[in-house]
Amino acid sequence: MDTLASLLTAHRSGRSSPSDTIRATYRRIAAHADPAMFITLRPEADVLAEAAALEARKAAALPLYGIPVAVKDNIDVAGLPTTAACPAFAYEPTVDAVAVARLKAAGALIIGKTNLDQFATGLVGVRSPYGVPRNVFKPDLVPGGSSSGSASAVAAGIVPIALGTDTAGSGRVPAMLQNIVGLKPSLGLVPNTGLVPACRTLDAISIFALTVDDAMAVLEVMGGYEASDAFSRPLTIAPLGPMPEKPTIGILPPAQREFFDDADAAAAYESALARLAGLGATLKEIDFAPFAETARLLYEGPWVAERFIVAEDLLARDPDAIHPVTRTITEAGGKSSAADAFRALYRLQELRAAVKPLLAGLDAILVPTAPTAYRLDEVLADPIRLNSRLGTYTNFVNLLDMCGTAVPAHIAASGVPYGVTFLAPAGQDGAVASLARAFAADADMPLAASADHAAYPALGALPDPERVDICMFGAHLSGLPLNAEVKSFGGRFVASVTTAAAYRMALIEGDVPRPGVSRVREGGTAIAGEIWSLPFDGVGRLLATIPAPLGLGSVELADGRRVAGFLAEAVPMAGCPDISAFGGFRAYLASLTSPAA
Amino acid sequence: MDTLASLLTAHRSGRSSPSDTIRATYRRIAAHADPAMFITLRPEADVLAEAAALEARKAAALPLYGIPVAVKDNIDVAGLPTTAACPAFAYEPTVDAVAVARLKAAGALIIGKTNLDQFATGLVGVRSPYGVPRNVFKPDLVPGGSSSGSASAVAAGIVPIALGTDTAGSGRVPAMLQNIVGLKPSLGLVPNTGLVPACRTLDAISIFALTVDDAMAVLEVMGGYEASDAFSRPLTIAPLGPMPEKPTIGILPPAQREFFDDADAAAAYESALARLAGLGATLKEIDFAPFAETARLLYEGPWVAERFIVAEDLLARDPDAIHPVTRTITEAGGKSSAADAFRALYRLQELRAAVKPLLAGLDAILVPTAPTAYRLDEVLADPIRLNSRLGTYTNFVNLLDMCGTAVPAHIAASGVPYGVTFLAPAGQDGAVASLARAFAADADMPLAASADHAAYPALGALPDPERVDICMFGAHLSGLPLNAEVKSFGGRFVASVTTAAAYRMALIEGDVPRPGVSRVREGGTAIAGEIWSLPFDGVGRLLATIPAPLGLGSVELADGRRVAGFLAEAVPMAGCPDISAFGGFRAYLASLTSPAA
Repeated sequence: MDTLASLLTAHRSGRSSPSDTIRATYRRIAAHADPAMFITLRPEADVLAEAAALEARKAAALPLYGIPVAVKDNIDVAGLPTTAACPAFAYEPTVDAVAVARLKAAGALIIGKTNLDQFATGLVGVRSPYGVPRNVFKPDLVPGGSSSGSASAVAAGIVPIALGTDTAGSGRVPAMLQNIVGLKPSLGLVPNTGLVPACRTLDAISIFALTVDDAMAVLEVMGGYEASDAFSRPLTIAPLGPMPEKPTIGILPPAQREFFDDADAAAAYESALARLAGLGATLKEIDFAPFAETARLLYEGPWVAERFIVAEDLLARDPDAIHPVTRTITEAGGKSSAADAFRALYRLQELRAAVKPLLAGLDAILVPTAPTAYRLDEVLADPIRLNSRLGTYTNFVNLLDMCGTAVPAHIAASGVPYGVTFLAPAGQDGAVASLARAFAADADMPLAASADHAAYPALGALPDPERVDICMFGAHLSGLPLNAEVKSFGGRFVASVTTAAAYRMALIEGDVPRPGVSRVREGGTAIAGEIWSLPFDGVGRLLATIPAPLGLGSVELADGRRVAGFLAEAVPMAGCPDISAFGGFRAYLASLTSPAA
Repeated sequence: MDTLASLLTAHRSGRSSPSDTIRATYRRIAAHADPAMFITLRPEADVLAEAAALEARKAAALPLYGIPVAVKDNIDVAGLPTTAACPAFAYEPTVDAVAVARLKAAGALIIGKTNLDQFATGLVGVRSPYGVPRNVFKPDLVPGGSSSGSASAVAAGIVPIALGTDTAGSGRVPAMLQNIVGLKPSLGLVPNTGLVPACRTLDAISIFALTVDDAMAVLEVMGGYEASDAFSRPLTIAPLGPMPEKPTIGILPPAQREFFDDADAAAAYESALARLAGLGATLKEIDFAPFAETARLLYEGPWVAERFIVAEDLLARDPDAIHPVTRTITEAGGKSSAADAFRALYRLQELRAAVKPLLAGLDAILVPTAPTAYRLDEVLADPIRLNSRLGTYTNFVNLLDMCGTAVPAHIAASGVPYGVTFLAPAGQDGAVASLARAFAADADMPLAASADHAAYPALGALPDPERVDICMFGAHLSGLPLNAEVKSFGGRFVASVTTAAAYRMALIEGDVPRPGVSRVREGGTAIAGEIWSLPFDGVGRLLATIPAPLGLGSVELADGRRVAGFLAEAVPMAGCPDISAFGGFRAYLASLTSPAA
């Protein structure tokens, strides 16, 4: 299947053009023939004209150069109606949603607006007057929702990228049900300006893709602070990296796993845990109770009032214009009181406080994306209860201010696809996606319903983005007077090392005697030191304490690596006693107290 | 008057004992003879027994050793009833509020529980079945509320410290009306465990004192993360320091000042501004509209539902047990809907976003503590409207997540005391208190109703605790390729400088040509550079980008000062072309493009 990465390579190499890609896209749409996938599909000629303009601009360096994208129809695309799957609600925006504008500016070509559970209320994909998009992976299953059309469009290979939204799981549940990747960013990372809200305090624009790499490439384009969105936050996105060396992953204790009697789902989760352990992760069972209670708060609590606010005018004016299930849910949201809302906010705050220590020290938690999968006929027979069950492992995520990436994990003999989601506190989007990537690379699942597999090239080890390794030589060494300061700055011991044989060490006298290490042209020797890792912030604190002639430079180690480290200015050190012969400051100190001295 | 500082000195020097202080306290209570000040006053013998125990423990090093403290009667003190000024609501806690427990552990002696506007609803101090505490400074004025008894107890010199609470201004308005200091900490800094909420999302335990130093000493004891309070936050408290050199203070534009025709109040604010300008501050008018709108949200919006929650059972069971004004307000809080609540939360989020750029670059904003002062008879005749007016400059503060310190500013010829409040975003409690301290020291107002004045000893200049000045010489200079990186790390330009005439500059060739500056023994010259101030965290980010042979050392400037700065290792630089003759990297770059070259 065409991924974003493969299309970009083809476009940049000239092997194919954006226009070729758009023509192929529309051929696939015709071949797939699902009238319920798009609510508005743009005329092919219009998109081709944009592709041609892009080609004329020689814009191949753009990160999404000529990539076709489908957009969930609760996100504004200028000139196309926004319906939220409710014709009576529809309006035609003149301005793109900020997320869409960022995609376009990066070279993406929007082909149309996809179907959804009306007002993004639902996890099933059957609550729309525009029909039920086909589940591409297993047609008797619901497509998943609310971002049903977007998930189907990616699963069908029509577009490599589609935007969803995710308030309670609408960007993750359909990803599992159609065997693709669903990335749910931190709240406030992707601006919501131009989005029809579901719950305005809990909505995140999300990304469907075939691979984690593709999803992250889009997140990097769409993410970032935006003043026009009052809920926007200045979060940063760490780049994708390899699996951390020994991650600790929180998992569900067996007694708290709920699969609604789906033994395949239980086995799929077990096998995902085994895979993770095989990748070197330490698995740690954590109490799921506060997560489960938070999940229940979402639909049993007052947040439904946010959905009522969106539909309020229409409920008053033309209630029959609203899907009966959606109407039942949103009307109920109008009945709760402000006191109920505050009581629920108090309980949520307590649950957040309860979850905090559970997450401490974990790289992520791993949950099933959904506890089971349901067929269309099952959901139509029991629309609210089964929908609600699907949110067991997704509903709590935005309330607890977490981010996550859902990836395929297993296909049962029944043909049902199962997935898992890596979750961590907001702001760790890149780290969580990196874990999901390592998992996906190892699982090597087929892409959507195809026989293709993702290429996940090995990533070089990335330097820890929030810390710096610093080589210490003197009073900062373990057990010496200034070591407590290093620890107070967040320092962690990494390794004992020696420098390349190119340095000399001299003694700076003072309240605390300190060595000054400088590089020399000849006669250099290896000096023993310790590498301590400091957070960026700790480096600043450390630097503020360093007196002349010492500073932080780049030190060559015996193994040829270079790390930041303490160096002394050569010239002011010239008069100081040379103590290089000791080979290290600790040995020098020992000489002062040894009886032989 | 006895301040915390003077009592502590006396206790530690042995000039007087905690027992002496407690006896004096009870003598003053008797002499002051205000039956409405305390709801529960502990028997003198009980407190004396505690004082004796403290003396026996030789605990003079404790930060509040033997300091008598009064506690507002909505904060639990084990063994004393908590009434919230509503006898029908009263209960007897067996555990101290965390804030109280911290005070006791620091050596404070709790003498009793003070009167308040019932359920901490009010800014006037007249809404209590326990009577109206006397305004100590000017008896015809209301005492201010809701922390009426606590403010009066400090103003009367009965205790140097009393705890209040501050949701809408209850810790600041009474401070102004009785000419004392009111410190309103950041939300979540002082734990609320053991507090009867007013609005649980907006309550802060606050401190009344005679001086800013006293209030901060107590904040340092009470502040800090506490797991039992779900709303607790891990904020730090900067120590008190001198006035920053050139602070920029946001002020009200003349057209947006509201004093309800109180010309004295207007003049008092003007004179405070003049004082601040005289202290070297730059005054910057900022749009007050979003602050004013936020202030109105507090009582016109759904937060009143939080007050309803507190009183709900009692309203149902025995409505007549509630003060009629309080009942009217809290009953109304039961009527708003969850949709109203979320709509108000959306608007608040927008107002927070609107306020953010207004506060950017400011050290604080300065507002009148209250727009005017009212007499008892005026308030009794028009209890809700006048109360509401008093909150003009306080109501918005917790909703916008700010902290502040209110200090006396002026006494009008009428005898009415006026005050001002310094405000800044949460987490800046120490910085704001330092500004208030500098103002108070300069204003040299009498303490409460006495003829005494505060001793504010000069504080040594503190280094900016969160930033480091770094001297740049090359591609990081303004306008050069790496300058954007400096800014992205939070860098702010400080000054153009030259080094001492002791350095040489050589050229390191590469993708971006960079100079390497090193100290030399002789033949040194002055090199031009720029000082940029970086946050600690930015220093770490910067260091992570610096390649050998460059590093961060200590640079001697032409004026003899030393700052951190870019230095190159002397030895690896030896082969590089010397460009010192240009006097700076910018001049070297200019030479490359100048026609003469």
